[in-house]
Amino acid sequence: MDKNFKIEVIPDSCGIADVKGFSVAGVACDIRNKNDYERLDLALICADAPAAAAGVFTSNDVKAAPVYVDCAHLKSSAKIKAIVANSGNANACTGAEGMRDANDECALVAQMLGVEPCEVLVSSTGRIGELLPMEKVRKGIEQAVKSLSKTPEASMAAAHAIMTSDTRPKTVTVRVSVGDKSFSFGGMAKGAGMIEPNMATMLCYIATDALADRDILKECLLKAVNRSFNRITIDGDMSTNDTVICLAGGASGVEIKSAELIEAFAEGLKQACQVLARKIVGDGEKITKVINFKVCSAATPEQAEKICRSVANSLLVKSAWFGADPNWGRIIDAAGYARTGIDFGKIDLYYGDVPAIIKGEPQHSNKELWKKVVSAKEFEITLALNLGKCSESILTTDLTTGYVEFNKGE
Amino acid sequence: MDKNFKIEVIPDSCGIADVKGFSVAGVACDIRNKNDYERLDLALICADAPAAAAGVFTSNDVKAAPVYVDCAHLKSSAKIKAIVANSGNANACTGAEGMRDANDECALVAQMLGVEPCEVLVSSTGRIGELLPMEKVRKGIEQAVKSLSKTPEASMAAAHAIMTSDTRPKTVTVRVSVGDKSFSFGGMAKGAGMIEPNMATMLCYIATDALADRDILKECLLKAVNRSFNRITIDGDMSTNDTVICLAGGASGVEIKSAELIEAFAEGLKQACQVLARKIVGDGEKITKVINFKVCSAATPEQAEKICRSVANSLLVKSAWFGADPNWGRIIDAAGYARTGIDFGKIDLYYGDVPAIIKGEPQHSNKELWKKVVSAKEFEITLALNLGKCSESILTTDLTTGYVEFNKGE
Repeated sequence: MDKNFKIEVIPDSCGIADVKGFSVAGVACDIRNKNDYERLDLALICADAPAAAAGVFTSNDVKAAPVYVDCAHLKSSAKIKAIVANSGNANACTGAEGMRDANDECALVAQMLGVEPCEVLVSSTGRIGELLPMEKVRKGIEQAVKSLSKTPEASMAAAHAIMTSDTRPKTVTVRVSVGDKSFSFGGMAKGAGMIEPNMATMLCYIATDALADRDILKECLLKAVNRSFNRITIDGDMSTNDTVICLAGGASGVEIKSAELIEAFAEGLKQACQVLARKIVGDGEKITKVINFKVCSAATPEQAEKICRSVANSLLVKSAWFGADPNWGRIIDAAGYARTGIDFGKIDLYYGDVPAIIKGEPQHSNKELWKKVVSAKEFEITLALNLGKCSESILTTDLTTGYVEFNKGE
Repeated sequence: MDKNFKIEVIPDSCGIADVKGFSVAGVACDIRNKNDYERLDLALICADAPAAAAGVFTSNDVKAAPVYVDCAHLKSSAKIKAIVANSGNANACTGAEGMRDANDECALVAQMLGVEPCEVLVSSTGRIGELLPMEKVRKGIEQAVKSLSKTPEASMAAAHAIMTSDTRPKTVTVRVSVGDKSFSFGGMAKGAGMIEPNMATMLCYIATDALADRDILKECLLKAVNRSFNRITIDGDMSTNDTVICLAGGASGVEIKSAELIEAFAEGLKQACQVLARKIVGDGEKITKVINFKVCSAATPEQAEKICRSVANSLLVKSAWFGADPNWGRIIDAAGYARTGIDFGKIDLYYGDVPAIIKGEPQHSNKELWKKVVSAKEFEITLALNLGKCSESILTTDLTTGYVEFNKGE
């Protein structure tokens, strides 16, 4: 089916500063209390004029203070002027004092930008259970407001400032054309460990110069997140701070109202999220492989998704991938313990395009070929259940000795 | 509350041969096709006279051939004469040929013992997707039938023969006295990796000289499994072959009919299962720590259990334990993403007896004490939700670089 729109993902882009109507800053204020004023740790995104906004947040029972504050602000304010985000400290499990700190951050940014506190959103990522060093945060915010700019350098500095165990900044720029109209999305994200359903320990901010009302924005963002960040997993853990926010400033003058424009807008936003999600997985803590695991011909979408998650989070499957061991037995075992009612006698399994099982019969003669597929740094595995017409996929990684070593703590 | 019965767990016992009325054998028949006739790989348990039997099996959608055969035999036959079990090959995902092999094993044992094939049960554990070397299995069975004996040596040989990546055999003997009546349980099990809810890759056989009818046996076994093997986890994976079988021979002459005797019988069986479950966890693949994680004051049993499993299977939590890092933040995070409706402000968390969080407030001054608890090889963590009166616990392990290295395959 031909679409009436064109979507272009810009390579090596700087993200938010590529979008008209937004300024950004990334500064260092030693939030980790290590007397380190080199490492960028506080980012600020500022809309020229307050922008329509939508957010999607962690579904963890235990939410960090900034998540509560953002939900409240998105409810009480129609427009958002700025987002302040820090790395190094999650401001999670910090009680009433943590809530006050998150509110203070918004108030401080608001005061400096001449808006109401509820027009500012706030995020934190990093260690749980410690109070923010608010004096440092205050200085960081002052410095960030002063440094706001529309340069690619500022945009990359902001992308750096939200990093925790990420090894590289993650940005995306997407241009959408519909007839003679065009608008852009620019975004940045951080991820690394703890990525699973519902966007664990990840922050993502996307700005657009399209003009979209809050309801359309919210609907498109939910769909985009569901097709991107909610379809990746590194270790199955989910954090208290996960946040995806989209700001629509409107500087392009393109108003997203017609069905055609809504479709193009939704698709552009989804692709922006997918690029960032892919970058998060590729930069998972100490991973060595990225696997696109697909389930097709499932009886229901739920069955396909359940099996995807069961396989993509199996320690035995992920350990086997680390060793470039195809080990279809572990995949089938994990698919089976999702307990969705699969029938092994009907199953086909492919490593890349190479059949490993056809209707429950192992294709032993292909063994060397499977092994080759799984030796690559990126590959695809497809499990066909032959029970119906539904499919689902998930981007996942191997489980490495490096991951365990890295996360074993003190 | 005083019980009218006494339960005694016998240390360093040999398991099944401690129970009157059963013979055992463990032989080597090179099922791994490595020309290794030293490694024991086929076990046989034989009741002097056919015994009442009950079994609990994997709930994986993909069940190995022996599981199907056992379920059928337990349905069609009131009594069971023998169980044959091999390690090295799981006879799983082996299609019609695998089913024929499992049936052939039963038929062969039955023929040699002069009973019907449906009076024999069969188990396999090991690699998935490969056919059993039936000629070797046949010879093994012949040798095993000839070697049947009631000696502790035979009992230990059988316990060795079912081992895969286990580093030591696992046996238990429990004596129960009720007034002047007494009876015993003797059991053996294998586990190692892939242990989770519903008894992944584990085999367990328990013999008793009590006289119990099938229904009572089944009910007591289900309860015992639920309080033991279903409350342990190493890597959250669950196998296609999990099997727990209990045979009640009756040689003690004690008939389990009165409420008092049923209670004593159930408790004895549960304790036998718990001892074996504990041994399985302690011998988890390349683990260095065993953790008893408890949730108490939950609103519902389901909430308590969900949180237990979420925490006990979190890669981040388990990696932290490996490094002796208490990291309560990761525990709270994992408890939160179970999404059962916990309230962080109400939570208490204890490492051993040391409070780490009281009503949502971290007890930072105890930090060195927590650290000490988590440095032990075995410890307990208790999470009180303060939402109700339900509790649950799970035995789990750390996640080690050794586990990943060991499971990375080829």
